[in-house]
Amino acid sequence: MLMEKMISSADEGQTCSPLAGPGSGPHNRGAVGFVLVHAGAGYHSESKAKEYKHVCKRACLRAVDRLRAGALAVEAVTAALVELEDSPFTNAGTGSNLNLSGEIECDASIMDGKSLHYGAVGALSGIKNPVLVARRLLSEAQKGKLSAGRIPPCFLAGKGAQHWAASHGIPPCPAEKMATKFSLSAYRRNKRKMEVAERVEAECYQTKRARQAAENDRDLGSLARVRAIVDCGENRSACLDTVGAIVVDQEGNVAAAVSSGGLAMKHPGRVGQAAHYGCGCWAQNAGNAVPYSTAVSTSGCGEHLVRTMLARECSTAMQAEDAHQALLEAMQTKFIMEFLWSHTTESMCIGYMSAQDSKAKTHISRLPPGTVAGHSLAIEGGVCRLGNKSD
Amino acid sequence: MLMEKMISSADEGQTCSPLAGPGSGPHNRGAVGFVLVHAGAGYHSESKAKEYKHVCKRACLRAVDRLRAGALAVEAVTAALVELEDSPFTNAGTGSNLNLSGEIECDASIMDGKSLHYGAVGALSGIKNPVLVARRLLSEAQKGKLSAGRIPPCFLAGKGAQHWAASHGIPPCPAEKMATKFSLSAYRRNKRKMEVAERVEAECYQTKRARQAAENDRDLGSLARVRAIVDCGENRSACLDTVGAIVVDQEGNVAAAVSSGGLAMKHPGRVGQAAHYGCGCWAQNAGNAVPYSTAVSTSGCGEHLVRTMLARECSTAMQAEDAHQALLEAMQTKFIMEFLWSHTTESMCIGYMSAQDSKAKTHISRLPPGTVAGHSLAIEGGVCRLGNKSD
Repeated sequence: MLMEKMISSADEGQTCSPLAGPGSGPHNRGAVGFVLVHAGAGYHSESKAKEYKHVCKRACLRAVDRLRAGALAVEAVTAALVELEDSPFTNAGTGSNLNLSGEIECDASIMDGKSLHYGAVGALSGIKNPVLVARRLLSEAQKGKLSAGRIPPCFLAGKGAQHWAASHGIPPCPAEKMATKFSLSAYRRNKRKMEVAERVEAECYQTKRARQAAENDRDLGSLARVRAIVDCGENRSACLDTVGAIVVDQEGNVAAAVSSGGLAMKHPGRVGQAAHYGCGCWAQNAGNAVPYSTAVSTSGCGEHLVRTMLARECSTAMQAEDAHQALLEAMQTKFIMEFLWSHTTESMCIGYMSAQDSKAKTHISRLPPGTVAGHSLAIEGGVCRLGNKSD
Repeated sequence: MLMEKMISSADEGQTCSPLAGPGSGPHNRGAVGFVLVHAGAGYHSESKAKEYKHVCKRACLRAVDRLRAGALAVEAVTAALVELEDSPFTNAGTGSNLNLSGEIECDASIMDGKSLHYGAVGALSGIKNPVLVARRLLSEAQKGKLSAGRIPPCFLAGKGAQHWAASHGIPPCPAEKMATKFSLSAYRRNKRKMEVAERVEAECYQTKRARQAAENDRDLGSLARVRAIVDCGENRSACLDTVGAIVVDQEGNVAAAVSSGGLAMKHPGRVGQAAHYGCGCWAQNAGNAVPYSTAVSTSGCGEHLVRTMLARECSTAMQAEDAHQALLEAMQTKFIMEFLWSHTTESMCIGYMSAQDSKAKTHISRLPPGTVAGHSLAIEGGVCRLGNKSD
């Protein structure tokens, strides 16, 4: 397998990409396929780096195991997501952020590049692996119409989604099993911060009214200064968003999936980008109106990603990018695959592995020192030879 | 006001567009603005045509009343939608299709072309006017962050959406007030059809198993033939989808909104295209990365519209269309607006009105005789002079 650093630039500077040169030796010559996972954009403390790398490695292995067993992309990407959701360190499934009512409500979606079918769940409670419900919606939709000509759903939210899951044999999971001591302590801390912020806000409002009475209402700036900011875990170390994965299988099919517990202290019922079609993930095989196969999985501030429809836009951009022409031509003849990751958050933990590798590579990408999260961009990536098409 | 038929073609033939030539005389010279509404694509019986036209007229008037009072596009488009939702004849708000559990669950969304903010609700029960919740989400988001730096939601679903509405002063509405005798009788009829279809399906399955035992499983075609199809009202006459409207205000801002009760007998929790960003509606003022203002509102089979992201695609296409170059140039100098509607269903009822008109025009667009719904396309439209920009 050939693996090399391709693009590395951030904020007119350079990110340090620790990507190794040539990959580890071939492990399973016959097997073809590739997986890339991310444990969420956000902030990864050095102390927790090992945990996130482990999660990414295990998720890569799960997907590659499925690929080696002959599974298609959708099944392999689901396996990776289940592993990411089961980790108490990610903001997805077990260990998700708690909402305003202290409950876990998850979003997840999955897309099959071959059929372009997708399945999604929003604000789903009481299910250990939300991606399994999204996956099941996708596969049920692929079976065609329901009784009496009804069109099967592709997006279910809330209680209805929970009932649908139960009626399709996906077992419920008690809330206390999905919350962790970290998510519970973060909830209590955030609750206190909100109470403080709201008390200060109320006081400022009183002050403002008093000042207005004296025809003087110039100063509310203090409000912003004293505001406590909701975080998502101890010392921001668990402040991560949507996890996700993309997979290419032996037939060249692509699939993508994402899963998220959403923002900490969000309003119950809030649906984020991980459940939005075209926003959380995108997968499209070559031939489905596009010359090249693409798979995209996004992570970050939900509302912003929804507005930009990032996943689909990335997919479109990758089709059009002139700079990639040589690489794209190489793909046609040598079945070489390009992969990229990019973030505007302080860090992002990713892992990747081909079916020919003996183990996954992981990497925590960080913005260069001195740059500001939200204003700087890191783009890194690599290429992977999946074997000649004639293999 | 100048109003003329611009484009009219369907299935390589022609649709009969009864659009009048010159519009009615100016009613309110100073007022500038325009509204176009639709009562949903689907099938409109001749007997109910009058009702749908009345609904569209009233919705146009509501929006124009607001525009004449100086309201901006978002407020006027909301007023039109409330009228469409309140009609018992449309599949939105009162009179919505019932779901599998016999409940009403609505989707609605709204987009402001000036700020590009949007608000959406999905699977929302117990609220008379879902568009008011979507509108309130939009305006709350425009106020900036919540206490402790939390990002306000733009999409809420299910119970959480209902609670948010209540906490923002939008009163609940008992389910029995939103169901109509038509929606209730359609529900009972559909329930029977489903029972028949499922019984037949089970019998076919038994037959199949018996045949498989005899190594003969060739014939399941009969299943499709005997399947009863769920309808959405008496003799298909209420079989309509999402209602919607687009508005241009005196400042040239555009806004779009849609609202829907969704498919009859849908699974509880199902979220359709009316709640999906980029799928139900799209509005974008000129200058927001595009040369011309566009507003789009879609209607039809949810899952298909979601996959095509129709609203946003329409908006993009309208920016790029070479054939419209002359018209677009005219818009720049004469403040002329183009509007189009298109459907693949048997019919679609629309209404439109400028702030200078004394009354709304309505029209039921139908596919030409001999064409097949779902396989043929009708496109019609017009232009409207809103007054010179220097007025």
